[in-house]
Amino acid sequence: MKKGILLVVSAPSAGGKGTILKELFQQNETLRMSVSATTRQPRPGEVDGKDYYFVSRETFQQWVDTGSMLEHAEYVGNCYGTPKAPVEEWLNQGLDVVLEIDVQGGSQIKNLAPDCVSVFITPPTMEVLEKRLRDRGTEDEETICKRLATARQELTFAEGYDYIVINDKLEDAVEDMQAILRSEKRKSARNPGFIQRVLNI
Amino acid sequence: MKKGILLVVSAPSAGGKGTILKELFQQNETLRMSVSATTRQPRPGEVDGKDYYFVSRETFQQWVDTGSMLEHAEYVGNCYGTPKAPVEEWLNQGLDVVLEIDVQGGSQIKNLAPDCVSVFITPPTMEVLEKRLRDRGTEDEETICKRLATARQELTFAEGYDYIVINDKLEDAVEDMQAILRSEKRKSARNPGFIQRVLNI
Repeated sequence: MKKGILLVVSAPSAGGKGTILKELFQQNETLRMSVSATTRQPRPGEVDGKDYYFVSRETFQQWVDTGSMLEHAEYVGNCYGTPKAPVEEWLNQGLDVVLEIDVQGGSQIKNLAPDCVSVFITPPTMEVLEKRLRDRGTEDEETICKRLATARQELTFAEGYDYIVINDKLEDAVEDMQAILRSEKRKSARNPGFIQRVLNI
Repeated sequence: MKKGILLVVSAPSAGGKGTILKELFQQNETLRMSVSATTRQPRPGEVDGKDYYFVSRETFQQWVDTGSMLEHAEYVGNCYGTPKAPVEEWLNQGLDVVLEIDVQGGSQIKNLAPDCVSVFITPPTMEVLEKRLRDRGTEDEETICKRLATARQELTFAEGYDYIVINDKLEDAVEDMQAILRSEKRKSARNPGFIQRVLNI
């Protein structure tokens, strides 16, 4: 069984990552979304093991200490992280796994899972990002300015990713993601022993 | 203008490279086929600059000496090689260029054009290759055996290529090639300065 691909995906806030991934999942039956562990309390309707693994701070710290986390971070007083075991299990079953992660987490992953594929999704221009934020009409001026400042800062991490996908037209961005998954499977480095099998030696 | 991609394609004899490339060219208007230079005489119907650049041995040697060839080799008394200038011109126009080449030439190219993308097309198994050769019914037993022996030897070079595409179903192999071209364009290493432009700095 050929191992699946671990696809690490980051984007600045309002970068349109959610829409692209939703479409990608609809087109790929062999794609799985990694589930994070967190120490925060479940919100109404959230399901343990589906939305998050809800764990105590002690359990979380133990997983970190024993190297059982792919990456982890603290955010407004709660811990978030990616348990390694379920991801590895899917990959070993030949399933591809998407790991949505912020840009800081992205840099940790590459050290722990060097054969992962990292994709940064970017708006075509800052003007487009600003327009998208304003068109939503859900945030006040101050929040929009803060989000834009954060996005500018996050964008500077993009070149550390393997691929940069431009979220201009949705269908183009999704096709880019599909092409990345498909071509990565054809990399010779991901097919050790393949030629030996063709030669039957 | 973003530079095009130099796609180096090799396959063992009877590997089905021709059929795959023909289909790939039909689907890609921005794809060009690199034209080789040769010192052999033109055959009836062959057009200079289209089928080959037909040149004298002196001219050929001069191109080699001045570093104007991407790769070159001698084959049954005639010289064959890939002039660099027309390939570079297409790439600078943003066009992608296919370079069909034998496995020995393939290893030279990577040294001279490190940003090229190399693809090895392989039959799924040696049995399939043998069946294809026999089904053509154009070669005698001795020739078939020779071709199979050559193919086995050529296959050992496959893992030095960036990608291995299996020629099992034609449409899958063509889609693999398309995915490779598409995803390579999204590599961050091929998009220097892109994020600066998004940020407008």
